[in-house]
Amino acid sequence: MTKGVLTIVSGFAGSGKGTVMKQLLSRHGEYALSISATTRKPRKGERDGVEYFFKTKEEFEKMIGEHAFLEYANYVGNYYGTPASYVDEQLNLGKDVILEIEVQGALQVKKLRSDALLVFLTPPSGAELERRLRGRGTETDEVIRSRMRRAGEESELMSSYDYILINDDVDRATEELHNLIRSQHLAASRNEELIGRIRRELGVCR
Amino acid sequence: MTKGVLTIVSGFAGSGKGTVMKQLLSRHGEYALSISATTRKPRKGERDGVEYFFKTKEEFEKMIGEHAFLEYANYVGNYYGTPASYVDEQLNLGKDVILEIEVQGALQVKKLRSDALLVFLTPPSGAELERRLRGRGTETDEVIRSRMRRAGEESELMSSYDYILINDDVDRATEELHNLIRSQHLAASRNEELIGRIRRELGVCR
Repeated sequence: MTKGVLTIVSGFAGSGKGTVMKQLLSRHGEYALSISATTRKPRKGERDGVEYFFKTKEEFEKMIGEHAFLEYANYVGNYYGTPASYVDEQLNLGKDVILEIEVQGALQVKKLRSDALLVFLTPPSGAELERRLRGRGTETDEVIRSRMRRAGEESELMSSYDYILINDDVDRATEELHNLIRSQHLAASRNEELIGRIRRELGVCR
Repeated sequence: MTKGVLTIVSGFAGSGKGTVMKQLLSRHGEYALSISATTRKPRKGERDGVEYFFKTKEEFEKMIGEHAFLEYANYVGNYYGTPASYVDEQLNLGKDVILEIEVQGALQVKKLRSDALLVFLTPPSGAELERRLRGRGTETDEVIRSRMRRAGEESELMSSYDYILINDDVDRATEELHNLIRSQHLAASRNEELIGRIRRELGVCR
């Protein structure tokens, strides 16, 4: 069995990332979604090891010291991070693992795991992003301006991603993401064992 | 319109490459197959600019001097080569172009066109390759041994390809190849214009 592919999906708030992820996971049973650790308190109905791994500040900081995270950040007073152990367990079982994280975290992971597939999801245009944010009808102008500003900052790192996925149709974006991950399994760098075996069978030493 | 993707497909004799290529081109009308130039004489029914561009030795060598080939080789007394002009014409029209060439030529092209997608087609095992070569029932033992030896030599360069495609089912291999090429369109390196436009729309200078 070959190792799973680690895919990191990022995108602007309003890119429709959540919808695409939900559809990918429901249509294709082969994916495992990474579970984050956090020091924030569980909300009603949240279960440890399902929505999050809930940790105390002390536990979390001990894990930081042990390099147990692929990435972590502190956000309004709470830590959030991706424990390497869960991801590696799934990858070693041959499961393709998906991390849905923001751009800074994504690039932290890429430094540790150069074979990770980085996918950035975007609406087709800036105007469409604003339209979607306004369309929710629940945000103040100020919140929308701040989201757009943040999107501008995030866009700075788009070029560091491997693939840019335009989400103008959820079905299509979902299938394109699925194809990207499937294709990654065929990368020569992931198939050194296969190449070695065929070479031996052809009587070439290696 | 964005530029087409240049894909180079190589594979052992007996890998089923011809069948996969035929199926890809008949199922998906969007691909252009590159046309080689050669100094060998046209066979009955072969038309200039369709099966080959037929050239005299002098014409071919003049083109070599003008760096007009993406790759070329001399094979039992005749030149064969891939004229860059035809490939570039098609790519600029937004067509995805496929080159079906052997390993040395493939790596020559990759040096000139680093964004070319290199795909190596292989049967699932060395034993299966031999079975397919024998299955044709038309070759002597000596020819089969020489084909297997050549496959061994070619396998040396498999790791230099971007993707390894196992052909154990023609339909599946065809769709995987199609997916690889489609995915390549989403590479961030091919979408700098899109990224720049979205950044401008988000009010970030670039």
